[in-house]
Amino acid sequence: MQVIALAQIERALEGLDLLPLIEEGFVAYSEGRAVVPPVGELILDTGEVHIKYGFIRGGPFYVVKIASGFYGNPSRGLPSGDGMMLLFDQATGRPVAALLDHGRLTDLRTAAAGAIAARYLAPSRVERIGVAGTGVQARLQVQHLEPITPCRAVLAWGRDKGRLEAYRHDMAKEGFEVEAARDPAELGARCNLIVTATPAIEPLLKTGDIRPGTHVSAIGSDAPHKQELDPGILARADLVVADSRAQCRLRGEIAHALDRGAISLDRVVELGDVIAARAPRRTNDAQVTVFDSTGVAVQDIQIATAVARAAGVTPDA
Amino acid sequence: MQVIALAQIERALEGLDLLPLIEEGFVAYSEGRAVVPPVGELILDTGEVHIKYGFIRGGPFYVVKIASGFYGNPSRGLPSGDGMMLLFDQATGRPVAALLDHGRLTDLRTAAAGAIAARYLAPSRVERIGVAGTGVQARLQVQHLEPITPCRAVLAWGRDKGRLEAYRHDMAKEGFEVEAARDPAELGARCNLIVTATPAIEPLLKTGDIRPGTHVSAIGSDAPHKQELDPGILARADLVVADSRAQCRLRGEIAHALDRGAISLDRVVELGDVIAARAPRRTNDAQVTVFDSTGVAVQDIQIATAVARAAGVTPDA
Repeated sequence: MQVIALAQIERALEGLDLLPLIEEGFVAYSEGRAVVPPVGELILDTGEVHIKYGFIRGGPFYVVKIASGFYGNPSRGLPSGDGMMLLFDQATGRPVAALLDHGRLTDLRTAAAGAIAARYLAPSRVERIGVAGTGVQARLQVQHLEPITPCRAVLAWGRDKGRLEAYRHDMAKEGFEVEAARDPAELGARCNLIVTATPAIEPLLKTGDIRPGTHVSAIGSDAPHKQELDPGILARADLVVADSRAQCRLRGEIAHALDRGAISLDRVVELGDVIAARAPRRTNDAQVTVFDSTGVAVQDIQIATAVARAAGVTPDA
Repeated sequence: MQVIALAQIERALEGLDLLPLIEEGFVAYSEGRAVVPPVGELILDTGEVHIKYGFIRGGPFYVVKIASGFYGNPSRGLPSGDGMMLLFDQATGRPVAALLDHGRLTDLRTAAAGAIAARYLAPSRVERIGVAGTGVQARLQVQHLEPITPCRAVLAWGRDKGRLEAYRHDMAKEGFEVEAARDPAELGARCNLIVTATPAIEPLLKTGDIRPGTHVSAIGSDAPHKQELDPGILARADLVVADSRAQCRLRGEIAHALDRGAISLDRVVELGDVIAARAPRRTNDAQVTVFDSTGVAVQDIQIATAVARAAGVTPDA
């Protein structure tokens, strides 16, 4: 088994175009060509662990990803998240590579999903990008919108003023002009492409906050107890898109909206079907669209396979 | 993360007394001190993968084990089984060690479970050890009985005569005198401690094959489609012991017997409770007892933690 450290992973990433790779993964998933069992979960007093695993039929590898979030890490000077991706040969089961990415590949494949959703669902002219959150994902989501829209005006909201200022400062270096929002409602009032990337456990955005013509990508809520959007936003949306219908029944914004009876599952379409044009996309600039990202193993499979190949890992068959 | 290869694992094992370690794990599990979610599973055309994971509350690590069996490997000159165990710190989530054991630790913790069951359930005088199967587990099970009983007479049955002869020959070097059985029924007729360690998918041993006073450890059946014992054997047993009641509802001999209505779950006790003397053990030499091993993550946690510590791995806290 080849152990691949973060520096080597970063080098492998330089030559990769993630968006088409991740799109391909979503399409394979929605076409039933991927085997992705339910997410494994360990809940400790100190943190939580997700195990995502699966394979695409006919692909070279199966992938097991272990990702964790530990609440006390920042006070120890450690990042809260960590993770690794393991690749095994589909022909023999041989472990071929361990990508010790410390969660970096999860961050990137998640950012790619947001960009893909925006490609098919954002209004034709993005006035301003709204972002809730000031962490790694709030940065990556906006950065990955660069090929999707020429808009570089960002309105950001975060609870911590210091972190919000750091966000503004750091994103300026990436070419984005960031204003600070007073509250989450201001994102709805002034932005028509909104990304939520917080660990919130109750809605930040209320139904009345969202104007016609807005697309919202809800990225933060990947566990049953997390929630960023009022279920009413999904109820009044013209289009609700899940990364995985099966997974969104159990976790994320759609799960909350289903539980509350705000929507029914037959109104939810899957991103892979949107990409493959088997499900509707945005058809006019008055529609409200919502994308709910819970993170599907097929994204991990795609990014891990591409990075491993770029790092010289070859299958047995 | 420390990557520990098989040779180093073997050295670490030399100083370890596995039986008390694994007993402790079963007791922790039956006392509700272990968190062990349902087994994750990937079924490919070429093989199958089990993901077992969990932690003991207050312990140093959580453990994720990935074990595979790939049918075509022997024809490629590879062993069918492979596997690794990953240890993460319970305080921070940091990956601390990858034990690249190729399934060796799973083999050993499974053999230890059989020996532990025999310690509490075998009749006081073992006439002859019966074993169905001639593979790695059929060897390790018998070898691990060495501290449990002075009996060194073995009757072995296997489909392949060549493999059976190799088994006889190899086990002689370990101090066991092995005769070859004509059929599985002969195991029941001549042995009062029987271990089944085959990948059978239909019963090898029939209800009438088992005499009073016999203990049977059913080791092979760890997946829903596998089966080595007629459900009637469990129905007429005086004591049916599961490694995990929760897991044995879904896989192994007990699952088949429950499905057929041959037994009810309230008749099934757990090995950890037997060890801790909270559940009955064998009380006389006329009883029939059955142990059903499906393999519980708590065994993996115990062996992985002990090996990692012996190899110098330390937790963060």
